[in-house]
Amino acid sequence: MRISRYPDELREQVESYLEQLTFVQPGIEAASGLQDAMRYSLLAGGKRIRPVLVLATARAIGEPAERMLPIAAALELIHTYSLIHDDLPAMDDDDLRRGRPTCHKAFGENVAILAGDGLYAEAFRHVLSAQEGEPSAVLATLAELATATGVNGMVGGQYLDVTATAPDGAAGLRQLHALKTGRLIGASILCPLLLGSAGRPATMDAFRSFASELGVLFQIVDDILDVTGTDDALGKPHGSDERLGKRTYVSEFGLARARELAADSHRNARAALEQAAAGGADELEQITDFIYTRTS
Amino acid sequence: MRISRYPDELREQVESYLEQLTFVQPGIEAASGLQDAMRYSLLAGGKRIRPVLVLATARAIGEPAERMLPIAAALELIHTYSLIHDDLPAMDDDDLRRGRPTCHKAFGENVAILAGDGLYAEAFRHVLSAQEGEPSAVLATLAELATATGVNGMVGGQYLDVTATAPDGAAGLRQLHALKTGRLIGASILCPLLLGSAGRPATMDAFRSFASELGVLFQIVDDILDVTGTDDALGKPHGSDERLGKRTYVSEFGLARARELAADSHRNARAALEQAAAGGADELEQITDFIYTRTS
Repeated sequence: MRISRYPDELREQVESYLEQLTFVQPGIEAASGLQDAMRYSLLAGGKRIRPVLVLATARAIGEPAERMLPIAAALELIHTYSLIHDDLPAMDDDDLRRGRPTCHKAFGENVAILAGDGLYAEAFRHVLSAQEGEPSAVLATLAELATATGVNGMVGGQYLDVTATAPDGAAGLRQLHALKTGRLIGASILCPLLLGSAGRPATMDAFRSFASELGVLFQIVDDILDVTGTDDALGKPHGSDERLGKRTYVSEFGLARARELAADSHRNARAALEQAAAGGADELEQITDFIYTRTS
Repeated sequence: MRISRYPDELREQVESYLEQLTFVQPGIEAASGLQDAMRYSLLAGGKRIRPVLVLATARAIGEPAERMLPIAAALELIHTYSLIHDDLPAMDDDDLRRGRPTCHKAFGENVAILAGDGLYAEAFRHVLSAQEGEPSAVLATLAELATATGVNGMVGGQYLDVTATAPDGAAGLRQLHALKTGRLIGASILCPLLLGSAGRPATMDAFRSFASELGVLFQIVDDILDVTGTDDALGKPHGSDERLGKRTYVSEFGLARARELAADSHRNARAALEQAAAGGADELEQITDFIYTRTS
């Protein structure tokens, strides 16, 4: 399968924006080692799918992408925080991430815990200090961010994952991943809508369906790649899901059926996007195809 | 020294409010074990100094205390999150907190990390869903919360503590504690001002001086109690600062001088409060005296 084109122009905008972010204020230089650990993990590259989704969604509703860079960056800070905590010895105990030592391997476990904590706090602080928008729209955006990353979102999903307490069967698997990864991907699409002028209920619902399906697609492909990908492309040893006894679409349905489910999910996501944006969302279409065809 | 009266009526209001807080929404019942861990640590008792400061400050500026319960609760959620992460094996490795096993001892290290992460997210979500106030005032309050708990506040202070990277001398010690504990105590006084009608620059500055001095007083007394307190009263083994090689007011100045510094700081805090509230702040006076005279 050919890998689809990625909106690299948007990714480069995100990358430049992230590179110039600093967190330590004048007078607090003693904490610059913490900032080093945060930036080490934040600037490890990657496709920046969540912030690129923010900018692509902004374009789909006719908003300038630049205006959404603060909330886009906040989503990547939060994603990075979740990876740092997921990699900790008490969690998945991973040594490598994107081909480099994980944060706790490079800076120690205590600093890694605090780097994650710090990234989450600074994500909120960045939105609060840099994001333009009507106060009520910024509040709605922050509420989406807090909900998507709390007990009923990312942190709850991670709990289901590490304690293996998700309900049995396909519905349980879907809930686990909807919380753990899907909610943050969803927030990447909903936050720019809340900030922009397209926050009408009907549009929101259509985009919400797209966001939810895109989250599912992302996870099925992720689970397939953990089995079929190369260490080199993934930047970490493949097969780690099986080693950790994780519930995945492959462990639940087998590889062949997981591939069919990915194809279904890709079709559903494209249909939901057509419903939401009626053909005016080139970059979101590209990202959807890319997520389906990616190899890492 | 006689222990001063504490505003127990405000503490009881806080306690009842915290007891009825739940986090898991319908449909996410699978994550209820995470909520159990969060509530285990949240409802372990204590003086609730931060939320009581919120309510006392509300009264000092003529606002109904009830109106500030959501932000008060958020500060206690955040304080609890910081204790859970501080107690982790990679940090201070404490087994006991308030006379009970620490969160990671009771629920496992992975769940404890996530309980902390979850409490922090839910603190923001609670303010965003339950706190009344003008949108711009709520935004200012959230900005204070994020700054006080981020790299330039609590998390930065904890980094200086666990990595022993605070600058040498009294100024470095003061910075360490101003960030680690002082900023959150300060936020407990500033957030109700930002939400209330007293957000005038002059009032804010006077209260800011009070908040800063109260944070210093709290820490000096804390350091003294770690040496002179009983295990029973503290709910954990005393002498843990020395065992961990922590920099404290006692290690830096000796016990006798630390006591003098506490007396100075108490006097300064009372003077700053008089400046800020001109005698109309009974509960804040009580808390200031209590913090100075407490034995646990």
